[in-house]
Amino acid sequence: MPVPGKIKKAAMANEQAWPKADNRRIVIEGVVPEVDHGTVPIKRIPGEEVRVRADIYSDGHNSISAQLLFRQKSSQLWASVPMTLLGNDLWEGKFLISLFKDHEYTIRAWVNLFETWQKEFRKRLEAHQDLTMHITVGKAILKQLLSEDIQDDHLIDPVERQRIMDQCQGEMTPQALLDERLTVFSQNIPDRLTCYDYLKILPVQVDRKQALFSSWYEFFPRSFGKTGHHGRFRDCLPVLKEVARMGFDVVYLPPIHPVGVTRRKGRNNSTQSETGDPGSPWAIGSPFGGHKAVHPDLGTIEDFSWFVREAKALGLEIALDVAYQCSPDHPYVKEHPEWFAKRPDGSIQYAENPPKKYEDVYPIDFNSPDKAALWMELKSVIDFWISHGVKIFRIDNPHTKPFVFWSWMIGEIRKVCPDVIFLAEAFTRPKVMNQLAKNGFSQSYTYFTWRSTKEEIIQYVGQLITGESREVYRPNFWPNTPDILPVHLQNAPRSMFIIRFVLASTLSSNYGIYGPVYELCENQPVEGKEEYVHSEKYELKSWDWDRAGHIKEVITQVNQLRKIMPELQTTWNTRFCDIENSKIIAYTKSSHDGKRHLLIAVNLDPLKDQTGWVKVPLYDWNANLNSRYEALDLITQAKSQWQGEWNQVILDTKERQFLIYELRFQQ
Amino acid sequence: MPVPGKIKKAAMANEQAWPKADNRRIVIEGVVPEVDHGTVPIKRIPGEEVRVRADIYSDGHNSISAQLLFRQKSSQLWASVPMTLLGNDLWEGKFLISLFKDHEYTIRAWVNLFETWQKEFRKRLEAHQDLTMHITVGKAILKQLLSEDIQDDHLIDPVERQRIMDQCQGEMTPQALLDERLTVFSQNIPDRLTCYDYLKILPVQVDRKQALFSSWYEFFPRSFGKTGHHGRFRDCLPVLKEVARMGFDVVYLPPIHPVGVTRRKGRNNSTQSETGDPGSPWAIGSPFGGHKAVHPDLGTIEDFSWFVREAKALGLEIALDVAYQCSPDHPYVKEHPEWFAKRPDGSIQYAENPPKKYEDVYPIDFNSPDKAALWMELKSVIDFWISHGVKIFRIDNPHTKPFVFWSWMIGEIRKVCPDVIFLAEAFTRPKVMNQLAKNGFSQSYTYFTWRSTKEEIIQYVGQLITGESREVYRPNFWPNTPDILPVHLQNAPRSMFIIRFVLASTLSSNYGIYGPVYELCENQPVEGKEEYVHSEKYELKSWDWDRAGHIKEVITQVNQLRKIMPELQTTWNTRFCDIENSKIIAYTKSSHDGKRHLLIAVNLDPLKDQTGWVKVPLYDWNANLNSRYEALDLITQAKSQWQGEWNQVILDTKERQFLIYELRFQQ
Repeated sequence: MPVPGKIKKAAMANEQAWPKADNRRIVIEGVVPEVDHGTVPIKRIPGEEVRVRADIYSDGHNSISAQLLFRQKSSQLWASVPMTLLGNDLWEGKFLISLFKDHEYTIRAWVNLFETWQKEFRKRLEAHQDLTMHITVGKAILKQLLSEDIQDDHLIDPVERQRIMDQCQGEMTPQALLDERLTVFSQNIPDRLTCYDYLKILPVQVDRKQALFSSWYEFFPRSFGKTGHHGRFRDCLPVLKEVARMGFDVVYLPPIHPVGVTRRKGRNNSTQSETGDPGSPWAIGSPFGGHKAVHPDLGTIEDFSWFVREAKALGLEIALDVAYQCSPDHPYVKEHPEWFAKRPDGSIQYAENPPKKYEDVYPIDFNSPDKAALWMELKSVIDFWISHGVKIFRIDNPHTKPFVFWSWMIGEIRKVCPDVIFLAEAFTRPKVMNQLAKNGFSQSYTYFTWRSTKEEIIQYVGQLITGESREVYRPNFWPNTPDILPVHLQNAPRSMFIIRFVLASTLSSNYGIYGPVYELCENQPVEGKEEYVHSEKYELKSWDWDRAGHIKEVITQVNQLRKIMPELQTTWNTRFCDIENSKIIAYTKSSHDGKRHLLIAVNLDPLKDQTGWVKVPLYDWNANLNSRYEALDLITQAKSQWQGEWNQVILDTKERQFLIYELRFQQ
Repeated sequence: MPVPGKIKKAAMANEQAWPKADNRRIVIEGVVPEVDHGTVPIKRIPGEEVRVRADIYSDGHNSISAQLLFRQKSSQLWASVPMTLLGNDLWEGKFLISLFKDHEYTIRAWVNLFETWQKEFRKRLEAHQDLTMHITVGKAILKQLLSEDIQDDHLIDPVERQRIMDQCQGEMTPQALLDERLTVFSQNIPDRLTCYDYLKILPVQVDRKQALFSSWYEFFPRSFGKTGHHGRFRDCLPVLKEVARMGFDVVYLPPIHPVGVTRRKGRNNSTQSETGDPGSPWAIGSPFGGHKAVHPDLGTIEDFSWFVREAKALGLEIALDVAYQCSPDHPYVKEHPEWFAKRPDGSIQYAENPPKKYEDVYPIDFNSPDKAALWMELKSVIDFWISHGVKIFRIDNPHTKPFVFWSWMIGEIRKVCPDVIFLAEAFTRPKVMNQLAKNGFSQSYTYFTWRSTKEEIIQYVGQLITGESREVYRPNFWPNTPDILPVHLQNAPRSMFIIRFVLASTLSSNYGIYGPVYELCENQPVEGKEEYVHSEKYELKSWDWDRAGHIKEVITQVNQLRKIMPELQTTWNTRFCDIENSKIIAYTKSSHDGKRHLLIAVNLDPLKDQTGWVKVPLYDWNANLNSRYEALDLITQAKSQWQGEWNQVILDTKERQFLIYELRFQQ
């Protein structure tokens, strides 16, 4: 597969005076991927390929040729790769994203006169017709191809071209004219008269690798102070070390800014706070500052910078929470009252979801008359934290702000810092979540949090991997969040926490947990709600992190595997297996070259051992259906011999709730 | 459903200074129907509706409202109709095409502040919150709506508006503010700040009724002369009368132009013609003229005009065959040699499909350097015959000419004569056939000719009715043509001819037969080919039209039913029924209002009687599953009593090979 390094000077048709519209004979339609008519970029990371399919045809019975053109965004130079006909006028081509740069692609096709001539000539030859004149015609077409300016074309070997040129000078036998090498030569030289370029240039947003592969750990630094004290960044080095030891690579912090005092929430979301209650970190802003300030009890901005550096040294990146909303004490409220909606009595409108009121929070009016200044200020919040070493942002409730704000803001940031990653925390209707992905978010929260049965998981993951959103929506699976203790984890046994962790971390290459409550298997809800009782959102907690029953070792094992196995670093390769037990879910994750295969099986029953026969997709892997192969347990390193498609897996609820095998075939 | 007669003054957003792009909060996407990003018109006839669906949503939790806007093409005035939410952000609206004019449509949506306010107010009321300020807010929004300039809006009843205005002057109770009538009022008044119009205006090609409902009869006038003589138009009055008696409405003639002499084909496609052989009518042109001349043996242009008039008096329209190709004797060849491709020796390239040669025909080079003049001349052929009363053209092999020629030519003709109908005679790959439909052809030949098993028919018709092509591709079903005696009709019994006729004429509202060979059940092929032996294409025939075994009465019966039953005048209402016999095919055709239902059953077995239990789709018709209803045989007028879903049909191979029932439910 050619890479953009090897480029050719191929101007687009509309940059030259080539075909006039009414010379057009080629149709290119049904191009996939193409999101929203090409206005929305598809997403890739370096190392992923872009596979493009399109219906391409012309009038008449001529052969046609097609190329996939691609380049770094706005480059003057296109690279190209031949497309191949799959049948029924459907063509395919692909290219590899080898550089961390946004790309674009389009399609070129033309009537291949020489190939058409060869096809007809072969039939004439077989019918023993007089060939004299037809040889003249064929050589003339070939000479025309040789006369094209193709010096810089990487698809044409100059030696081969010279060989053909020499050959063309002399007599050519029918067999020489039917040479397959001439066909290939012709397939790389667009015909001037019929060459047609697809009218749209389709964009590819290329993000860095972490956009597709990341292991998030969320915690509240304020809970890690000395007993009874508000935790400080400087207290958290042991936390970072433990998180790094467990194998995570992103540390995500709830808002670290000063917390408002006015109408501060008390414990358990009480509207009355008591002395010492720290308030919700999402009630941002106080006289100590707003979105660009650090909560004084957490430390100084220098302390934060130290924290970022220490994390980096441990292989961790810091992700910040960006919640565009203000406590009544936020400096914006006094300085820019025009940025907030007013009620008829002139007071600022607090947040509501009638009949519920959130009086500790003022939403920002994104359509304020002073919008230009407001949007610039909101963007500058991101700029500020970028300047303090933060490159990952988890955006709080983006679906309650205008979509155009996100596409503008993310676009502006990516112009300067293409390595910034945005995670959309939108738990809302599917089309709205997808729209945010189209606005440029690198990752998105998902419904995984609530998908618990085998059928639900298979259907949902299938939809994410093969559905319309596939090209833009990178899932990030969270078994829990500070807002969500889902029903299946409420009062659930330790085994259930392992199940949900393993599913999240092996189905999706992006996943995260909110800890330490998760690995400590905290399972007590507020009665009838998905909220944690005594939620850390409203009070300082103190965690005995080594408490019996934690699942840290399982987490560590799987995270280490994720780091060394490229098959676990993408979501798109997940394929579910048939298995004769509805309580076991099994899936494979294969390498892109099809040479390495992982098989993962999880006992979805937290209470009962389960055994099942799983069907290994040998057929899809082009393996002999009676193959013998080795199943290497990547957790225990134990080896077993498997044979054929159907093999047994035995899972329990204690030691062996899941298995991750590498299936090794003899070369 | 509003009709364009009742119009409102609604300017498109981009015609006013309404929302700036960055005020945008509404997303409109996934609009259906929308062909090729709105560049290709969908097709309708007057009386058909356009049902439009789209995903419409905004950020946040506000209610939104949406309207489908529609108008006659290029009119300044839009009509509108409210769209309704079907769920999951999918909205639907529809309008009726009541005029024989091209139309266009688009979508408008906005955040409905009043409805949002009502929704929240209701919750506040139920939670017994203080409402004082919220009433102020609600009334302010309502007053804003009342202040909009909506005088000409047919969706707003001025009396109702005045009532609301009066009410607004005084105190309003919470219940009054929650009045559903206010909700409806708000749903018809776009909000200035958030109103967003879909960026594209989508076109509708409106053809006259015959584009969807037509019964074609093809015959060679030259075969109806006095014994042994070349038939003349003036000989054909009895033919017209018989065709009219059989209930057809389109008489389609193979090319009526002078036939070339050079390399004229003889009988059975022989390359050697003998004296008296008339040649293929598709070898067009001789010293007597070309595409604008009448074959002297058929008569004069005045005779043709007489023929058209006589046909019209009998309720028949004449359709001409347009084959853009020339015999070597065509005047174009001498006058415009530049319109033909040359071989290296300077001779004109004859038609070929190597190794086959068609030396009696020169293809026209549509991409000739003199293209402008050529295309104008080719279009003028259509103009010429329009001026002689012809409004239907069957285009020969359009897929071997550039697509852009068709879209240009058909577009130009429709500008002046929107009532011209073009039938595309392309038997080629599906995407190419669909492309021609997108180029503007009103009707298209189909693969029906070769679809003979129950499964094939159900799958193919399903695809035509519900597939992607549905909006542009109007099928015309032909059981035979002069070029095609399909395998299932070769040496087949009379019953097979009835089967294929009934399927064609009841599955598709456009159908045609090539006669009299069809109704005489001519079934002899050239060995191993789909050609008729002694094909009428190459020789004068003489038909004994009342020969025993003809199927003219069946044809007459079904054609008469087609004329009186609107359910048979559309293809889109065909729905297949379950039936417990694989040799019987059954389908219903219901009226648009769902009040009248036809049931058609056909014995696909030409040799054996068949009985089966057919499932009447009572559930889909919202009928009681135990209903008793009358089955009226529309052929015999016999009545039987049916009950429930499953009822028996008894079919034979002689008298009762098919049935067409009207199922009558008590009102």
